[in-house]
Amino acid sequence: MQIKKLLPLAAAAALVPAVGFAQDAAVDMTPPNEEIGYIFTTFMFLVTGFLVMWMGAGFSMLEAGLVRSKNVTMQLLKNIALFSIAALMYYLVGYNLMYPGDGWTITNVLGAFSATTLEPVGVAGADTDLTYASVGSDFFFQLMFCATTASIVSGTLAERIKLWPFLIFTVVLTGLIYPIQASWKWGGGFLDANFGFLDFAGSTVVHSVGGWAALAGALVLGPRIGKYTKDGRVNAFPGSNLTLATLGTFILWLGWFGFNGGSQLYMDTAGNVADISRIFANTNTGAAGGAIAALIATQLLYKKVDLTMVLNGALAGLVSVTAEPLTPSLGAATLIGAVGGVLVVFVVPMLDKLKIDDVVGAIPVHLFAGIWGTIAVVLTNPDATLGGQLISIVIVGAFVFTVSLVIWLALKAFMGIRVSEEDEVMGLDRSELGMEAYPEFTNS
Amino acid sequence: MQIKKLLPLAAAAALVPAVGFAQDAAVDMTPPNEEIGYIFTTFMFLVTGFLVMWMGAGFSMLEAGLVRSKNVTMQLLKNIALFSIAALMYYLVGYNLMYPGDGWTITNVLGAFSATTLEPVGVAGADTDLTYASVGSDFFFQLMFCATTASIVSGTLAERIKLWPFLIFTVVLTGLIYPIQASWKWGGGFLDANFGFLDFAGSTVVHSVGGWAALAGALVLGPRIGKYTKDGRVNAFPGSNLTLATLGTFILWLGWFGFNGGSQLYMDTAGNVADISRIFANTNTGAAGGAIAALIATQLLYKKVDLTMVLNGALAGLVSVTAEPLTPSLGAATLIGAVGGVLVVFVVPMLDKLKIDDVVGAIPVHLFAGIWGTIAVVLTNPDATLGGQLISIVIVGAFVFTVSLVIWLALKAFMGIRVSEEDEVMGLDRSELGMEAYPEFTNS
Amino acid sequence: MQIKKLLPLAAAAALVPAVGFAQDAAVDMTPPNEEIGYIFTTFMFLVTGFLVMWMGAGFSMLEAGLVRSKNVTMQLLKNIALFSIAALMYYLVGYNLMYPGDGWTITNVLGAFSATTLEPVGVAGADTDLTYASVGSDFFFQLMFCATTASIVSGTLAERIKLWPFLIFTVVLTGLIYPIQASWKWGGGFLDANFGFLDFAGSTVVHSVGGWAALAGALVLGPRIGKYTKDGRVNAFPGSNLTLATLGTFILWLGWFGFNGGSQLYMDTAGNVADISRIFANTNTGAAGGAIAALIATQLLYKKVDLTMVLNGALAGLVSVTAEPLTPSLGAATLIGAVGGVLVVFVVPMLDKLKIDDVVGAIPVHLFAGIWGTIAVVLTNPDATLGGQLISIVIVGAFVFTVSLVIWLALKAFMGIRVSEEDEVMGLDRSELGMEAYPEFTNS
Repeated sequence: MQIKKLLPLAAAAALVPAVGFAQDAAVDMTPPNEEIGYIFTTFMFLVTGFLVMWMGAGFSMLEAGLVRSKNVTMQLLKNIALFSIAALMYYLVGYNLMYPGDGWTITNVLGAFSATTLEPVGVAGADTDLTYASVGSDFFFQLMFCATTASIVSGTLAERIKLWPFLIFTVVLTGLIYPIQASWKWGGGFLDANFGFLDFAGSTVVHSVGGWAALAGALVLGPRIGKYTKDGRVNAFPGSNLTLATLGTFILWLGWFGFNGGSQLYMDTAGNVADISRIFANTNTGAAGGAIAALIATQLLYKKVDLTMVLNGALAGLVSVTAEPLTPSLGAATLIGAVGGVLVVFVVPMLDKLKIDDVVGAIPVHLFAGIWGTIAVVLTNPDATLGGQLISIVIVGAFVFTVSLVIWLALKAFMGIRVSEEDEVMGLDRSELGMEAYPEFTNS
Repeated sequence: MQIKKLLPLAAAAALVPAVGFAQDAAVDMTPPNEEIGYIFTTFMFLVTGFLVMWMGAGFSMLEAGLVRSKNVTMQLLKNIALFSIAALMYYLVGYNLMYPGDGWTITNVLGAFSATTLEPVGVAGADTDLTYASVGSDFFFQLMFCATTASIVSGTLAERIKLWPFLIFTVVLTGLIYPIQASWKWGGGFLDANFGFLDFAGSTVVHSVGGWAALAGALVLGPRIGKYTKDGRVNAFPGSNLTLATLGTFILWLGWFGFNGGSQLYMDTAGNVADISRIFANTNTGAAGGAIAALIATQLLYKKVDLTMVLNGALAGLVSVTAEPLTPSLGAATLIGAVGGVLVVFVVPMLDKLKIDDVVGAIPVHLFAGIWGTIAVVLTNPDATLGGQLISIVIVGAFVFTVSLVIWLALKAFMGIRVSEEDEVMGLDRSELGMEAYPEFTNS
Repeated sequence: MQIKKLLPLAAAAALVPAVGFAQDAAVDMTPPNEEIGYIFTTFMFLVTGFLVMWMGAGFSMLEAGLVRSKNVTMQLLKNIALFSIAALMYYLVGYNLMYPGDGWTITNVLGAFSATTLEPVGVAGADTDLTYASVGSDFFFQLMFCATTASIVSGTLAERIKLWPFLIFTVVLTGLIYPIQASWKWGGGFLDANFGFLDFAGSTVVHSVGGWAALAGALVLGPRIGKYTKDGRVNAFPGSNLTLATLGTFILWLGWFGFNGGSQLYMDTAGNVADISRIFANTNTGAAGGAIAALIATQLLYKKVDLTMVLNGALAGLVSVTAEPLTPSLGAATLIGAVGGVLVVFVVPMLDKLKIDDVVGAIPVHLFAGIWGTIAVVLTNPDATLGGQLISIVIVGAFVFTVSLVIWLALKAFMGIRVSEEDEVMGLDRSELGMEAYPEFTNS
């Protein structure tokens, strides 16, 4: 193939005389039959699902790069452990709780508790309880969203939380908190049925949920020693490895194509795959808008560009277009992302003023940009209402923040969630794990 | 698309009245014709193949992270070189040796020697010697399994083996040892035809083979200087970069979806793509089971969680479900993986007692978990027999170990395989390559 | 599925009696209808597009690994910024400029200026201005090629160029230079229409373009302080992190399957997907050939293998097969790649003799191997003429080099492009950004 593209107008003129494909005997735009559509959609879930799985590596690298070297091993351990816990809890409880079908125990609010089974297989070898894709592929794809939510929390609470309380919180978050609130929208619950809430890929359902859980944890846990001085200064604790943080950002950017693209949920027609394409393009430009906005904003505000702000700006851009990656034009997606990027630049110092110590900036990126993105749906999607979006943001936020707060407080009361002062100064790697991430390099 | 999933029971009820898809006039579950199936399966090979290719990067990062900084450059070099050698040898000899078709020179034991050609092209542009997928895609996919086998060896023998003898061994492994034994199962040879051996994606055919070759090398090579003291103590040589090791593990985890999923070999029907979906889900949960098992086991045994054990636990979980990723339920796959994770925790110190110095833990992960996974097939797949699995494990092991041992001994005799004591203490990077991986950082 | 492959000859004999698939009633090799083909091709663009996007991470890691630690943050920042700028400029100007369709303002030389829109949607939900794939997927895929071109430049000019002039150049490169010259071939312009120029995936159109722009910049910018001494010695400035450089190479290798494979542009028939498979296999073997050739060449020339040469050898192998990844046999692709790998080993010292300071070796890899690969098309593709290839190389080179030179000189005159001597010695991270990549590790 040598010319990369037909001259589009000429080609369209030749092939689509007046009224479009379907009228043209030479071009057969009949949608595929259900079996072919089933294969397309299922394979799409697997491909986009592995991209979202890859985001687990992205969060690990981002967080390991933004903490100090004395806490890197612990941060890595938490990330691989939370990903594994999400896999188990979503299988044991979460998936069926999130998609109750006819199995609501409280109608449209709480589903039933049961473990996932991927059998049995029906006619033509297909699963019987979904007609457009295999249950296994849907489970695989949805699981990765649950894991993403947990990944968001670990960054905020880094460098001072004990391992086991964090893992216990992860069990509750991935087994109960995430699936219950997700059922309200994606399982056909009351936010979807009664409030007309629109959240395409989860600015609220995934990202703000992680953000609220992290915020509750940060308030209970308190800031790191030395972060905020008595005379009101904020000490910067620079990340130990910015190449890792950048790698993590690129991984997340890549994974987000799966996150948003796969949320189309169907790839069985030309229309659906064209929609997925628009989503890919908008997701990319949203990230670019966020990165460039943060680049310019930090140059203007601080006279120096700040790489970590640019990285978080890209991520905030991604979160911002996640609630509606399909209806915006490329230009609108860029601007929606750019607002997210600017938000980060202003919210990071604001949190510091409130002495809320968010080690990697997950709250600005996932909570604030998540709220912004959810509201921004009304700008391009006429089906969304400002009221429906706002009430849903509030309901989800109140639920997740309250339940998380209770759990963090309970964990604090029963087992303690914070390492000792001595251990925190020494670093969690040596004190909790007896293992350093870079044993030959650190100057300390 | 706003609701992420139809309410499954309701939807199924509406669309599948009583007897399933095929009976329902509205739902056309006719499998695609052969050409469409060919496109599906071929593209599936390409996608899963590039995921397995990516495992080459995973092994590189894992190994570079687990060796000491003075040997990192060498470890990276070996990994990129072995991947390149595998590409050449599998093309020149391996592929046709592994799939003899009618070209066995010794029936069902040894195939014919010839280079791979991807031409000619038949009717409709398709290759003529496969009917369900393009030969190029099959070659690409299978090549990556050959490369994986070689990657396993390099980790065990790190920090003391010379470059060129290692590369020569790689030539033999990828050109002869791997393809010959793989032909016995996947080429339709005697293990497949006469012993009913089942190994879906290669717990034995790939992973244990790498493990046996590594074990033979470790015995001939001996442990690193200072690893085992005369008074019986074992010195820990901590890995120099645990972020890399974690990144490597995530890469391998991701790549494994391709490794196991692509081994379904067909994606031309709803049934096949549903099977691939189950394989993805089981592969993920097997890894999670292995990681959590190692997490809990190290906490219980050592009162401290060990990150490298958790990483190797995840990998052992992956190896364990590789022989049969399709038939287990999610719960069974989790448990099979968990046993693999526990195995690692016990085998690592056992090897140290035997003074077998396996730098990255490849023998527990790939050999022991590979054997376990091959045996575990009988737990969920009624077509497998314990006898058939065991005899095949033994035959493959005896062949690979013996041939590898002979080659390592020959290399030792003719050119020496171990660097001098002085060079080993200085590190291979400076002594063999004159180049450091982190020239500005090391404190030494 | 247990046997990995049907015995091919036997199977082919059984199913394809004499004249091939189409004659066999049992095998229906009818190409899919246009809608199914549209879905296949569109999804192929998305998958190969995200692989090419991933190359942005590859360049970042490669370059961050090959610069000294004092300039790493800046290198990361430039890479994420240029990727974002490419996204914006290609949307605002580039895409429509590159594919003018009927909208040439100077026939076959200059297209029209307008922003990309992905709407409107036609019959059956498909875009109306392409008939074989969605415009969104094509835009997404092509954008990534534009970004790749910009990535090439940043490596050469590292460690001494100011941030903002570099970004301004990136704006011009991605918005104007790249799309204008790309339209000459891939938009159906005069190189394609009048000179019969063949460049399948862009050895010239992408890689040499990046190389020429980098060369012009290197000449205007001058070498780094201390690189070349007055008495003619060349000081080596070793890369600070070879694991990152290796990771970057693996990422690029992976991404290249998308780069070359997606350039087939169609996946709607068995023939097209079989072609993509051949391209994947050839791309892999080209890289392997380049790596092994550089391995052997450095061993022979310097008696020690040089890892960075091997990495650049693999990349040069990839660039070399990019102009024609389809027609070569596996053996020919290996040899074409190997020549690229050897080229690198000889061109790197040659540039040093000319005192052209190319920090990461981008000029040998992308410019020299790009020219070689473009010429090598005539070896395997009978449609190519040596004259057509050479004149196209010269025209593209003259255009890009001249325009780039003028812009670099203008930037130098108006705002200065090089940091002060003091800042360069201190490192761009501290002087320009006030931020270190590894604040806890560097010994300096």
